Amino acid sequence: MIRVGIVGYGNIGKGVEKAVAAAPDMELRGIFTRRDPKGIMPADASTPVLHSGAAESMGGEIDVMVLCGGSATDLWEQGPYFASMFSTVDSFDTHSKIPAYMAAIDAAAKRTSAIISCGWDPGLFSMMRVLSGAILPDGASYTFWGKGVSQGHSDAIRRVDGVKNAIQYTVPIDSAVEAVRSGARPTFLARDKHLRECYVVAEPGADKEAIAKTVKAMPDYFADYDTTVEFIDEAEFMRSHSKMPHGGMVMHTGKTGEHGHVVEFSLKLESNPEFTGSIMAAYARAAFRLAAEGVFGAKTVFDVPLSYIAEKNREDIIKTLL
Amino acid sequence: MIRVGIVGYGNIGKGVEKAVAAAPDMELRGIFTRRDPKGIMPADASTPVLHSGAAESMGGEIDVMVLCGGSATDLWEQGPYFASMFSTVDSFDTHSKIPAYMAAIDAAAKRTSAIISCGWDPGLFSMMRVLSGAILPDGASYTFWGKGVSQGHSDAIRRVDGVKNAIQYTVPIDSAVEAVRSGARPTFLARDKHLRECYVVAEPGADKEAIAKTVKAMPDYFADYDTTVEFIDEAEFMRSHSKMPHGGMVMHTGKTGEHGHVVEFSLKLESNPEFTGSIMAAYARAAFRLAAEGVFGAKTVFDVPLSYIAEKNREDIIKTLL
Repeated sequence: MIRVGIVGYGNIGKGVEKAVAAAPDMELRGIFTRRDPKGIMPADASTPVLHSGAAESMGGEIDVMVLCGGSATDLWEQGPYFASMFSTVDSFDTHSKIPAYMAAIDAAAKRTSAIISCGWDPGLFSMMRVLSGAILPDGASYTFWGKGVSQGHSDAIRRVDGVKNAIQYTVPIDSAVEAVRSGARPTFLARDKHLRECYVVAEPGADKEAIAKTVKAMPDYFADYDTTVEFIDEAEFMRSHSKMPHGGMVMHTGKTGEHGHVVEFSLKLESNPEFTGSIMAAYARAAFRLAAEGVFGAKTVFDVPLSYIAEKNREDIIKTLL
Repeated sequence: MIRVGIVGYGNIGKGVEKAVAAAPDMELRGIFTRRDPKGIMPADASTPVLHSGAAESMGGEIDVMVLCGGSATDLWEQGPYFASMFSTVDSFDTHSKIPAYMAAIDAAAKRTSAIISCGWDPGLFSMMRVLSGAILPDGASYTFWGKGVSQGHSDAIRRVDGVKNAIQYTVPIDSAVEAVRSGARPTFLARDKHLRECYVVAEPGADKEAIAKTVKAMPDYFADYDTTVEFIDEAEFMRSHSKMPHGGMVMHTGKTGEHGHVVEFSLKLESNPEFTGSIMAAYARAAFRLAAEGVFGAKTVFDVPLSYIAEKNREDIIKTLL
């Protein structure tokens, strides 16, 4: 049995908890939190809930720590701290800062195996970009996200004056998807690929027109997109917008001489955090196996053979799935 | 530069030739054939064309031999023979015999790295089955092929009395694809997933009704499917059926608790042999790198990290594609 710990018990931590419970070769040995452990009720009441600091004396009791903190600040602390003691898995997702984060983890993971950025993007989508690009170098990859909830964009709207609650859906534009599928290798502006649909609950008496204007003009988040803002009441918000679906696709079109080819990988997810947690649990298996072989340091999904994430052994998957 | 040899100059060999020419880090050092080398005209007239036996004295001149023979008989000879001298890549595709073939290659590849079965099925589709199954163990994978030409089925029709020429298209059944996509995890008979469309040029005076009946009743190939047989003339055959398109998809649906997820990977290929040749060229890079690290023996796509097939180095793909 692979002995797993979960660090951070938000939506992703709960997703990992479910995935570990469903894996016949894993057992959850503890949930670690910076908050008061008494405030956390794990799905299985027998799971120990401990303060993060308690991990320091548990080196021999846990094989892999699955780090479920956010990329903005949590993982920069959690990552090196836990990787110095345990093999780890995380879903660090600030694409532009991956090399710096990886260097920090690599410096800490001297006797452990630490697989970074293993969600679905970065993660599975990254794998598809490398795979299809290696096969069809005369080609181009396109990534579309959605339809799904962007937590970052929803948070940004909630920071606007007069907003009580808000959610933002990223929506791929069908005509752009079709243009890629045709093999034309189009060049897109940000607004050509995705729409941003916002549903906002305003505070009583708030100036809705001003809110919509502020949201649409927000740099980085909305200014470069066609954005719709619809005001709804709290009841409607709870009824229709309390799920966390997501998905998206990576498409690669390329040529071999005069012949065109299209490679597509798509996800349709009813729960983004549960699917992400399931990927992390699978890669926790890989981290355990790499560490057992003495392969230490920071790793990515590009470094891990698929046989390392399968529950069944190599001979079995070669026989049944190759 | 990775020095590549091609063994066998049929459709796949020609596909590999194109892929190697397009790869900036590879050079084609020779085409090897059991036939008279004079009968082969390579795309680049400066490429040496040699008899297979000539390879025995070329150990230091070629890094990877890409084996383009068929799985029925060619590869059982070529595979162990070349793997004893060179690192190799092949697209062995008789699923049920992979373990036996792999054992034969492994016994020969004592000082070489030999990656077997790296086409798209087995190959890319196998990777998707392992990847999605590891992430969503409470789920099921379904593979659909087509619409595309099955060489084996076309050959089978051509062996029927009175048939001058024939081609068979494997066609996935839309309603089956939709049933899988819904997450219902249906159970299918062979005839529920694929149709078999046959276009036949009959010999003058042949009994067309008898041909159609014989084809439809052929065990293993057609008896378990809904099969259509349409008779066309030679001119129509040449005009409309001289391409080798193919494709297909792997779909995996699964649950995390009450939430459903759909993972899809699909290919739409204008030239099956050229795409297959492109995969083999990418994995030739991996065989070269594995051998350079002293990782010897028979390997599969499950054993090879994606960073080994990318032309760019690991740091680069982590920075740009993760």
